[in-house]
This record gives sequence, structure tokens and C-alpha cells, in this order.
Amino acid sequence: MKAPLRNNSARLLLGPGPSPVHPRVLAALSEPVLGHLDPEFCDIMSETTQLLRYVFATENALTVPLSGTGSAGMDASLTNLLEPGDKAVVLSCGVFGERLCDIVPRLGAELVKVDSKWGTPVDPADVKRAIAQAGRPKVVAAVHAETSTGVLQPLEEITKYAHEAGALMVVDAVTSLGGTEVPTDRLSLDFVYSGTQKCLSCPPGLAPVTLSEAAQQAIARRKSAVSSWYLDLSMIQRYWTGERFYHHTAPVNMVYALHEALSLIREETLEHCWARHARNARAFSEGVTAMGLELLVAPEYRLPSLVVIKVPQGIDDAQVRQKLLSDYNIEIGGGLGELKGKIWRVGLMGHGSKQSNIVLLLAALEHILKNLGMDVPEGAGTSAASRAFSN
Amino acid sequence: MKAPLRNNSARLLLGPGPSPVHPRVLAALSEPVLGHLDPEFCDIMSETTQLLRYVFATENALTVPLSGTGSAGMDASLTNLLEPGDKAVVLSCGVFGERLCDIVPRLGAELVKVDSKWGTPVDPADVKRAIAQAGRPKVVAAVHAETSTGVLQPLEEITKYAHEAGALMVVDAVTSLGGTEVPTDRLSLDFVYSGTQKCLSCPPGLAPVTLSEAAQQAIARRKSAVSSWYLDLSMIQRYWTGERFYHHTAPVNMVYALHEALSLIREETLEHCWARHARNARAFSEGVTAMGLELLVAPEYRLPSLVVIKVPQGIDDAQVRQKLLSDYNIEIGGGLGELKGKIWRVGLMGHGSKQSNIVLLLAALEHILKNLGMDVPEGAGTSAASRAFSN
Repeated sequence: MKAPLRNNSARLLLGPGPSPVHPRVLAALSEPVLGHLDPEFCDIMSETTQLLRYVFATENALTVPLSGTGSAGMDASLTNLLEPGDKAVVLSCGVFGERLCDIVPRLGAELVKVDSKWGTPVDPADVKRAIAQAGRPKVVAAVHAETSTGVLQPLEEITKYAHEAGALMVVDAVTSLGGTEVPTDRLSLDFVYSGTQKCLSCPPGLAPVTLSEAAQQAIARRKSAVSSWYLDLSMIQRYWTGERFYHHTAPVNMVYALHEALSLIREETLEHCWARHARNARAFSEGVTAMGLELLVAPEYRLPSLVVIKVPQGIDDAQVRQKLLSDYNIEIGGGLGELKGKIWRVGLMGHGSKQSNIVLLLAALEHILKNLGMDVPEGAGTSAASRAFSN
Repeated sequence: MKAPLRNNSARLLLGPGPSPVHPRVLAALSEPVLGHLDPEFCDIMSETTQLLRYVFATENALTVPLSGTGSAGMDASLTNLLEPGDKAVVLSCGVFGERLCDIVPRLGAELVKVDSKWGTPVDPADVKRAIAQAGRPKVVAAVHAETSTGVLQPLEEITKYAHEAGALMVVDAVTSLGGTEVPTDRLSLDFVYSGTQKCLSCPPGLAPVTLSEAAQQAIARRKSAVSSWYLDLSMIQRYWTGERFYHHTAPVNMVYALHEALSLIREETLEHCWARHARNARAFSEGVTAMGLELLVAPEYRLPSLVVIKVPQGIDDAQVRQKLLSDYNIEIGGGLGELKGKIWRVGLMGHGSKQSNIVLLLAALEHILKNLGMDVPEGAGTSAASRAFSN
């Protein structure tokens, strides 16, 4: 049995997450363990919640990292807000919207689903109709950045409809937080959750969440206890905000790492971080298009953190990803669900969103596709990207 | 705002967990992130499950680390096994038994509680009666090592009663796994969960669990879906055992750390690790007693990983712990719940269970208690411990 220390190929992570992590974050991760109630650790917790408020662009008091991966954040949102008999309108145009739909009936709540073709966002007019049909939904839930398709779901209109109907707006920002604006306070979103391993450039393991006053009140007014003891925010908030009342032992080292990753974003500033993601995704997209490849998503709905390419006719998806891994040590993602084998998902997230990675990946793709017999104009991808960077 | 890197006092962790971590484990933690479906990471996952089977002393196929802390393991056990209307007999003689009791009604199941005075284990005769009273309980749940009191609950008889009644035996081994025998296969325990931050000497963040065939079948036969999507073992097992079917992004670096921590136990051998914990707890207990302090738990029920001392009359619990922290950089634990202010909890867990730590803590305690006016015979604690080590 080999230890990972003797084994790690240090991949260049350009898939849909996890993303590359700054050396400072890895260094923070391996700092000595402190007790979860140690005054020093409590200071780190306080600073981490402040930094999370900065990145979520919110003043919400209850803004904390849950002790699980991004999916725990998703589970926690519906599990804390929905009670048996409640109705939830859920937008679905990909795997993660489907996952939200899967959770609703587990809680004894009623699902009203609004869907759309994978690769396009959900139409706000359909959401308006679904809310009317549902009567008084407790929650409207949407995936801001659909990691399975690369679609950015516009939030303005749907949030307005949700709030007009008295519903709480739940937003999955797993692949958008840090990479593009998540308008938590600007739109008064009620429960936003994310993961650490995408645009925050931290290893996977924590789920940052932020709750509006209205969401907190909805939890406080519940008639039944939250079914999950572990994700019960009425107890978790007593540990994370102020009281430090013991709930469970926090994943101390992961909190160090998140603190450092968020500090890096604050040093860069959130606005520069968004601009970098946007610029790099555009340059990569232009490179890909110049190579003769097609993108799945229309320009106005493209994520700045995840570019989704259609696998060209006659090319074997898995073979290309295998060559990228074996010859270039680069990971990109394949498709999930109905898009399996049909797309490549290229994450340009956090620390990974940089010019050198884009040029390298375009050159590697050109080489591999040429070798598989595809007619790719020589140097077209890297040239187009270089032009975009110079503009 | 200070980064943890510039801040960390590297405490000597002799409380009820987290425990000190070997430098090799911290080094593994900060290895570069791999993708959660990377073939290299899949090998590390396979090795980790093998190592977990070794430490759990089991052949159970479904032996995996859940992506949360030990409390997530507790939540997962009842959440996966209990359905609405099921009955659960729960043993409680401390905070963690109470927590199990708290979870049962959240799942719509019926609780039959068997308790006992904190500081003593639950009487098997009472368990037998409770099982009979419950009729056909689906589950009997017990805390093997009660971290709030330092009591080791004997499992033989109660497991026999549970199985005779056709119930599944759930065991909390958070503070026992690695520190003393957890008889998973020997007693055919059905669902055993633990945490990484106690005797496994790994940072907090994962919950190793192991399930018998019977427990797996009970999950497969459920009429209703598990209420928690995140902790649904019917899906998690498809990712961890064989198929590698994506469920959620594994906390990759925490898995590296666990792999390394388990490798250290295998190098020492499990039996030597248990013997070391037993020897050191005995030596520390003799030292404490020689100083004139009393232990909470009768010798036959004392945990080898956690020694619980009664705070002597006239001494302020918090003041002593504060002095240990400020003057010696040592963390020990206070009491929880009804034992708040009345006990000190000294963890001698994993990498922290060693002679030098014991001698240092005894000397520090002597010095602090003397300064607070207590009449402590000079050098009695360290001398008694030294004699115990030489025997």
C-alpha cells in the first residue's frame, strides 16, 4: 500500500471541481490542530464568518461554513426550510436542479418542478406560472451556476416572483461564489449555499451558507424539529455565532484553509476576482471556437467559471480526457446524466483561472484532436486566446 | 485580521478531542488536491477502506468514511436505519447517549430510553427489560465510549439481547476506535460509527462507519427514502465501493490524512495501539490518585482513551484549565451538561497517549493546584506514574 505522499501527481485541475489550490491554502491546512473551543480557534472562526460575508456580499448574521461538502449545503437549505406539507417550486435544467428535486419529497414536502432543456436556463415566465400553480410555496429554489451544463441562471426576475408570493428564495451558488456576482443582499436572497472547492480555491469539505433574517425566522417558527440533527441550523448557529455553544467538533483544519482561501480573495478584491474569471473564460471560449469546436451554452448565459464544449462528431470523449491526463497531467470533466459522452466541462475556477492554464489546455487539445484525425487549424486556439488577452 | 499561519500556538491537545496529530498526517493533509474521480484518488479510497476494515476489525464490505465529523456518523446511523413508526431502544448515560435520543423522534421513530447515572454504564438487565417493553425494536443503540463521562459501556450482553429480539445493534465508537477493542465482527455489531479526531489521531472532518450485511439489507428494504440526501448510504456506497458513481465531491485532503493516520496504526499494529492506550491511562490514573484527586468512573468501566477527574472541593474548574492553557499550552476538557464545572476530562488519545505528555500534565497540575492552595504531596503524581511505567 502506497501512501498518498509518494503517489500524488499534482494534476492541473481544470475540471468542474475540485479546482487548483494556492500553496498558502495548503500550508494553512496543515497547521497544528487547535481545539474547537480554543480561544485562538474562536478568533479564526469569527474572521472566517467576516470573510464569508465579504464574499457572499451580505450583512447576514448567520453566514457560516457547514461541516460537509457543497451538497451538504444543498441538503441543509431545504431540510431546514421545508416542513412536511410545505410546497417548493424548484427550477431544474441539469443534474444539480434534479438533485434539489430529489430532496423535496424526502422531507415530506410537495414538489412543483419547472424545467428547461439542459444547456439553457429556466424561463422566468415558467417560474411565475409554477408559483401561481403552487399556491403559496414556502420556497423557490434555483441553481445559479449549473455545474453539469455551464449555464448561469439569471436571478432577478425569479427572485421578484418568489418574494411577491411570500416564498423564500434558495440559491445554489456552488460554482458561482467567488467567480461571479452572487447578489445575496442586492436581491435579498434568503438561503445561499456554496462549496469550497470551486471558485474559492480551497479543498472540498465545507459548505459556506448564508441566511436572511426571513430564512432564520422561518426556521425559528418551525412546528417540527429539523429531521437532520447534524445539519440543524438552529443548533449550528449557537456554535458559530457568538455563544460558541458546542454542537459538533468543527473540521478545524478545513476552517484554516477556508480562512486563507478567503483572505486571498479579499487581497485580490472580489471585483477583480470576478473580472479575472470573466476575462479568462472569454479568452478560452474564443480559443475553443477558433479551433472549430462548439460551445453548449449561448453567450449570454455562459458561466465565467465553467466553459462547456460539445464533443465533436467522431471524437471519443473519454479518450481525449484520458490523453489529457496521461500526457499533460490535466483533468477536465465529462458530461453527467443525459450529457454523458457529449460534452467536456472545463473549469477555470479560482486559482486555476489564469492565462498560462488556458494557453496550455488549448495547445494540448489541439495536439490531441489532431492526432485523433480532426482537422484543427494550426495554432488557431492559442492565437485567438492570446489576442483576447491582449485586448 | 491575522492568518492562522501567524497565529497557531500548537497546543498540546489532552482534552476530549481533537487529539494531537502526527506530523506525517499533517503532511499528507497538505498534498495537492486530486479530483474525486481521479484514478489515483480512487486507489487511495480503496486503500482507505481496507485500512478502515483493519481498524474496525471487520470484513464488512460497506466500511467508509462519511464526509462529516463524528456527529454525522451518529446522524447517519439512525437516519439510514430508522423509518417513521420504527422503535429504537437507546442507552443513555451522558451527552452522547442523550444526542442519540434527540435524533430518534426527528425521524418519526419511537424512542425507548434506558438510562443510568452519569459516570456509570447502563445495566444490561435494564436494556433487556426495555427491549421486551418495546416489543420489536428495529434498533438498539449504545455509546461504547461516552466522551462526556469517560465510561466504557460493555457491549457483549446488550448486543446479545438486541440480536435475540431481531434488532440491529448500533454502536458509537467515536472515542474508542483505535484506543481499545471495538468488537465489530466478534459481536456482529450492525452499524458502528466513529470520528477521525480521537484515537485515530487525524484532524476532525470525517466519520468512519461500518455496516453489517443485515444493516445494509435493512436500508435496501426501506419503504421510504432516507430523509437526508447527503447521508443516504444507499447512494454513498455506490461511490465508495466499486462503482465510483458520483454522489458528492469527497473531502479529498481529509481522506489523504485519514489514510496516513490509519497507516500509522497499522505500522504500530492495532493490538499494540490498544495496549499503549491502556498502559498510559493506567499510569496517568495512578498519578492522579496519588496526588489526592478522585476519578469519576469505577476502574472496570474506565476508558483507556479518556480519564475523568473530579474537580476537588474549593477549586475552580475553569481557572485550572485557563492556567494549563496560558502557562503550559495544554488543553484539557471541562464537564458537559450536568457535570459542567464538576469534572476535568483528560484525553490520552492516539498520538497524544504517551509517557512524556502524562508526566508533563501531572507536573503542571501539581504546580497549579498547589498555587491555588490545595495540599498536594510533592512529586507524588509524577512518581506514581513513573512507577507504573516501569512495571
